[in-house]
Amino acid sequence: MRPVAIVGAGKTAFGALADRDLRSLAVESIAKCLKNANMEPSGVEAFYLGNFAGPEFIGQNHVAPYVAAAAGLAGIPATRFEAACASSGAAFFHAWTAVAAGAYDTVLVTGVEKMTSQPTPKVAEILAGAGDLAGEIRAGATFPALFAMIARRHMYEYGTTREQLAAVAVKNHDNGALNPEAHLRKRITIEQALAGKPVAEPLTVFDCSLVSDGAASVLITTLERARDLTARPIVVRGIAQTSDHVGLDRKETITTFPAVRRAGEKAYAMAGIGPRDVNVAELHDCFTIAEIIACEDLGFVSKSEGGPYAASGATARTGERPVNTSGGLKSKGHPVGATGVAQLCDLVTQLRGEAGERQVPGAATGLAQNLGGSGATCVVTILGVG
Amino acid sequence: MRPVAIVGAGKTAFGALADRDLRSLAVESIAKCLKNANMEPSGVEAFYLGNFAGPEFIGQNHVAPYVAAAAGLAGIPATRFEAACASSGAAFFHAWTAVAAGAYDTVLVTGVEKMTSQPTPKVAEILAGAGDLAGEIRAGATFPALFAMIARRHMYEYGTTREQLAAVAVKNHDNGALNPEAHLRKRITIEQALAGKPVAEPLTVFDCSLVSDGAASVLITTLERARDLTARPIVVRGIAQTSDHVGLDRKETITTFPAVRRAGEKAYAMAGIGPRDVNVAELHDCFTIAEIIACEDLGFVSKSEGGPYAASGATARTGERPVNTSGGLKSKGHPVGATGVAQLCDLVTQLRGEAGERQVPGAATGLAQNLGGSGATCVVTILGVG
Repeated sequence: MRPVAIVGAGKTAFGALADRDLRSLAVESIAKCLKNANMEPSGVEAFYLGNFAGPEFIGQNHVAPYVAAAAGLAGIPATRFEAACASSGAAFFHAWTAVAAGAYDTVLVTGVEKMTSQPTPKVAEILAGAGDLAGEIRAGATFPALFAMIARRHMYEYGTTREQLAAVAVKNHDNGALNPEAHLRKRITIEQALAGKPVAEPLTVFDCSLVSDGAASVLITTLERARDLTARPIVVRGIAQTSDHVGLDRKETITTFPAVRRAGEKAYAMAGIGPRDVNVAELHDCFTIAEIIACEDLGFVSKSEGGPYAASGATARTGERPVNTSGGLKSKGHPVGATGVAQLCDLVTQLRGEAGERQVPGAATGLAQNLGGSGATCVVTILGVG
Repeated sequence: MRPVAIVGAGKTAFGALADRDLRSLAVESIAKCLKNANMEPSGVEAFYLGNFAGPEFIGQNHVAPYVAAAAGLAGIPATRFEAACASSGAAFFHAWTAVAAGAYDTVLVTGVEKMTSQPTPKVAEILAGAGDLAGEIRAGATFPALFAMIARRHMYEYGTTREQLAAVAVKNHDNGALNPEAHLRKRITIEQALAGKPVAEPLTVFDCSLVSDGAASVLITTLERARDLTARPIVVRGIAQTSDHVGLDRKETITTFPAVRRAGEKAYAMAGIGPRDVNVAELHDCFTIAEIIACEDLGFVSKSEGGPYAASGATARTGERPVNTSGGLKSKGHPVGATGVAQLCDLVTQLRGEAGERQVPGAATGLAQNLGGSGATCVVTILGVG
């Protein structure tokens, strides 16, 4: 496999963007990405699009050629990838596979979702399609309910507290307040987080990520070619995609996600590094408990220590291992299909040293973890300065 | 790129299968395919699933790990590909890319759709998601209406007749009547086809493919490995995926599909053959006019000659170039996401000489054409005896 690098990144602002449709969001992120890479559309050999639920949110399916043609890319292979909230992580994994293996030299990967045109109960129903309808969802669970069960069990087994969950929310809001493209730029206190409106006990509204519109794109090519295109290519050092049962009732334990553990192990092995070598991470904080479990499953700390780790400040911008300096899904926003590629864009910004007030000094190795459902899909990507 | 071969194929019967759900259909086709290849699930390195609209037809999204875990494949990358009616063609194209380029040795590709649990108007609405909702669909078109316009224009430009359209239906029903796994095993006459209930003038119910449930799987590996696994590997000699504008109103002409022409040209070039070398073809007859246009766009005949060609008997089982010996989407059935891989299964049956009464004597080269929407996605695959 050949070394592959990101040579362009572009994102829309995330938010409840009433005047924007899916296609215009995707096209904006593509235009920004190609401009960032100084590349014409004609230089793109294939288009990989992550989108979770265009058909249900806005009625539009067949979204890849729908976007590609509007972006000046008609003709090339244009395909939609769906893996729940890891849809664009999966698109990126397959694009990386194709370039690394030599099938293409230059490929565009976009993630997009337009969610806010549906009322909240309908959004919850659409998101529940990422669970097992014949099992947990038929039994009445929504995703907040599933992650509430996970949080309860983590509290029971490891003594994790609501204050520790709240610490994740406070930190991510603190980061997001400094991100001009974040959906919700509002600092909160521990007291506010704890007093939040209950969604599914023990999770309050401050433990849950946002329903957002947005798009993100990255352009990848071989490292050899990347060196001609940019002075600072961002190299894919390790990457893995894994799967597991969709239904929470089919898992042996619910306080660890085997798909995350395996994806992390494989990505670390490919990169030849360990968790201690990660300088900055974007983790899939669809709920605060998910960030805590990800820190454990990815080996930043041992199982059981995720709660105290969150409360210790270790994952703050100034801590030993900053997590979600973008604001994360909690504050930056979570347009589901866009999230995987958006995480990569945020890491690129850090590794290029362009993160402004949020910059982690000397960040040279970044890790992104993109989760689908309650752990049925995971993509872990490790990026480094080329 | 390494030569790649199909070493296993498995399909469910197609039909309105009231007692079967999406997962059980997919798992059945996988079990048959792995048995056909004499392969254990543990030998599969990645899972590529084509599915058009699981979320809208049955409420289930995140379908790839949902199916994979039930088939004993949990752990490996499991991803859903969506490209309208070319969803599993696109999944196969990306799977081939990965194996040919050396990323994996052995990959499973499945296509599945469960459509008949929705009433017909809802099915039409879901299928319309493969068109451009901001344009043609908002203007009131459904897919039968779009292909009716295409047929009318083909008649106007080239003198194509309703009798020639009907000849496609009669032939495909004749083939499907001999296929024990076809949805509708019923011979029809030209008179019956012409007298069919109008759907969208000039198309009658006999010009339209079926709404079906079903699944199909193929296992691919390197040709080198295939030779150890089977005495008769079926080699992928040429393959291409292309894209175009989704909206019919965005195309310069509507009597030819540039995406089909380009995919055919690329696949022929890769295989080092021309249209005359094709012994048997499975073409995407979502409507009778689509088979006629495909025969032209793929170079079986010149533009304008598709209608007379269909009426001449050239594409019958005993003709010079048999098309849709399976019965095609018209008679075998069209579970949208399953169709691309099902076409490959049907060609494998022909190339292995296992097609019984429908066998084309000496068939050594087969071509499959899988179309998404009204020509926005096309995948052309050329298979040969290894």
